[in-house]
Amino acid sequence: MTDYSRYLSDVGAHLAGSAIRRMGTVVARATDLVSFAPGYPAPEAFPWADLREITAELLTGRDPNVLQYGPTRGHAPLIAALVDIVAERGIVAVPDEVLVTSGSQQGIDLIGRVLVSPGDVVLVELPTFTGAIAAFQNARARLVGVKQDADGVRPDDLEAVWARETAAGGHVKLLYVVPNFQNPTGRLLPLDRRRQLLEWAARRDVLIVEDDPYGSLYFEDVASAAETRPLKADDAQGRVLYLSSFSKTLAPGFRVAWMVAPAPLVERFDTAKQSTDLTSGILDQRIVHEAVRRGVVHRLAPALRALYREKRDAIEQALRVRLGDRLQWDTPKGGFFVWATLPEGERDEDLLTRALDHGVIFVVGSAFFVDGSGHDTIRLSFSAPPVRLLAEGVSRLDRALSGSVVTPPVAPHVPAAP
Amino acid sequence: MTDYSRYLSDVGAHLAGSAIRRMGTVVARATDLVSFAPGYPAPEAFPWADLREITAELLTGRDPNVLQYGPTRGHAPLIAALVDIVAERGIVAVPDEVLVTSGSQQGIDLIGRVLVSPGDVVLVELPTFTGAIAAFQNARARLVGVKQDADGVRPDDLEAVWARETAAGGHVKLLYVVPNFQNPTGRLLPLDRRRQLLEWAARRDVLIVEDDPYGSLYFEDVASAAETRPLKADDAQGRVLYLSSFSKTLAPGFRVAWMVAPAPLVERFDTAKQSTDLTSGILDQRIVHEAVRRGVVHRLAPALRALYREKRDAIEQALRVRLGDRLQWDTPKGGFFVWATLPEGERDEDLLTRALDHGVIFVVGSAFFVDGSGHDTIRLSFSAPPVRLLAEGVSRLDRALSGSVVTPPVAPHVPAAP
Repeated sequence: MTDYSRYLSDVGAHLAGSAIRRMGTVVARATDLVSFAPGYPAPEAFPWADLREITAELLTGRDPNVLQYGPTRGHAPLIAALVDIVAERGIVAVPDEVLVTSGSQQGIDLIGRVLVSPGDVVLVELPTFTGAIAAFQNARARLVGVKQDADGVRPDDLEAVWARETAAGGHVKLLYVVPNFQNPTGRLLPLDRRRQLLEWAARRDVLIVEDDPYGSLYFEDVASAAETRPLKADDAQGRVLYLSSFSKTLAPGFRVAWMVAPAPLVERFDTAKQSTDLTSGILDQRIVHEAVRRGVVHRLAPALRALYREKRDAIEQALRVRLGDRLQWDTPKGGFFVWATLPEGERDEDLLTRALDHGVIFVVGSAFFVDGSGHDTIRLSFSAPPVRLLAEGVSRLDRALSGSVVTPPVAPHVPAAP
Repeated sequence: MTDYSRYLSDVGAHLAGSAIRRMGTVVARATDLVSFAPGYPAPEAFPWADLREITAELLTGRDPNVLQYGPTRGHAPLIAALVDIVAERGIVAVPDEVLVTSGSQQGIDLIGRVLVSPGDVVLVELPTFTGAIAAFQNARARLVGVKQDADGVRPDDLEAVWARETAAGGHVKLLYVVPNFQNPTGRLLPLDRRRQLLEWAARRDVLIVEDDPYGSLYFEDVASAAETRPLKADDAQGRVLYLSSFSKTLAPGFRVAWMVAPAPLVERFDTAKQSTDLTSGILDQRIVHEAVRRGVVHRLAPALRALYREKRDAIEQALRVRLGDRLQWDTPKGGFFVWATLPEGERDEDLLTRALDHGVIFVVGSAFFVDGSGHDTIRLSFSAPPVRLLAEGVSRLDRALSGSVVTPPVAPHVPAAP
């Protein structure tokens, strides 16, 4: 009995994985590699001493619930703290509108399961986060892309795509956006566009999924906290499902993130989460709550902004010197990513193959496009490598690009195997 | 905009939650309650000192990966340790056949998503674990129950149910069983029945989901390790998807469990997990791995067997004295549960309402039956309350039962609202 394919469900037979996850496997196996691939946070910024102290106190055994099963909705004091955190971002929420999730990936997955029937249309940015693509594809959504310009998603194309899909009989249910330092482009959506998106969603009766992992990581030379104001803060109609996370502001190993959404929907997501993983990690939630309560998360934010800005400066400096004539990119205003356009005739996947030989990797731009395009782009994450390796990685990229942009020979057409 | 129901997917509109989870909410709100409801492990057995020491060492910062994103499949040294753990249970597995899951609940959920198309038949024991009912229902399975006797699931009824469902055009894809100290009945499936199940699955081309959280918690006066040998150990055909967990043998707050299944299926579950939560908690996996590596989990097992046996003795002693004339139950041979049949005319939900007034709760038996039956049964978890409270809880149950078993008046038949 070796062929299990006949046991698969519709979902199981058409599963979408994550291009970035696969890249993670490459990183784990290779040595001496500079990785611009996964958007991992900088481990040198993890507040080890604080976390050691917090954990030692939690594990005294005085409170047995630290290691017990907990409520699906989340640790109640953490939920209260989350209400305060989002309030600082302009979002007025009550605890019934909050759900703790096992990473924001789970938030997207729950939204897909509870709201998306097979064939429902989910609009995403071109390009967009691969984890969202995978989750919505596994909910059997029809994913349709909306074009961006240098400022982010274009309201005119949003309307055009909606009209086209609706005319074709589709039910456009969700718009998924990452307004702050978008993954993968790093773009910051201007406030007036955010307003336009909300107005559009109301007019077209669409719900907005706003994914905001990077909002607090703005670079103060070119952006301000005011410019990161979430759509959710001005969501008078209850149309926005807001996702955020501690993965980038504390550490991803905890898998603690959250959703703010209308209470009737949060109740549904809670029910769906019960049969998905019962509850997010309890010790993790306790540690994160203590890190918030003691001000660790708050104190860390300016240091993270400074650190990632320094890394952005380092990679941009190297890119300008070595690749300024061949790559095109906009200066990131925050977050983890440089989004670069390749020189004419170069293809993302071919470059990656050569880059691996030179000891540097990135994520191919096409992985972020739901329409099959983007092969002239790459995403460079500058967040994880130590500063001293950023220039080295760019040098390797230079060597991979140099002299090897060969015009592909016109090969005889070989039909694909059946 | 207050009616969100029109946005729900098919799954979202028919979500099944967990009766036990809801009960957890009651526990959290009430004070001075003896809870026989959720099957929580005994917090007095959590190895606090070991865990404190392990965590302090992990959080020195020497290995930054302790708080970083990790592979979806699981922390590689933990996977290697799991291969050894299942080998002790007679299961020969290679790392490619193992997936770390965020609780066994996630294992069941992934199986549902990857293998169950809407309408596929999943066979479950009558009664069975509510978390499995919810996960398979949310995969839109048709859940069909198989009768048990005092030894557990009945092979003759299994065949009868299969024949009936197949004749009706159903595709019987999975059989979900908990052979060791079943939830909720506490029954231990005899070895010859296990063999019969495997033969039956091969004959009828069905996959078996074997859920084994309690196997190491046998009570040595009436059971032995040999009697808990998993079906998976004799699975020559690769038909068994084996689930186990550290929730009952270390602590549930970590959300670390695992699956052993054929490699081609594990690869699918891995892909599905990528878009579900990316990875299980990394710090959690590291702590659990160290607890295994240092022998903490191994050393704990005999103490847990002794502790739960002592609790079983305490609740049985109290039940015999106070309720021996009104409740019927079999002595649990391991695990967390006494499964009791109520006196004639008593109904589980009515009793629970009165029990709450008397300060004791349990889970209504009917919550575990997919066929709407079981209203003459209740599940009493003796695992979590301290020994001194077990008799007190039974006293309260006695008062709730006493004098209030009224023969229900013959009410005029009122048709249900349309």
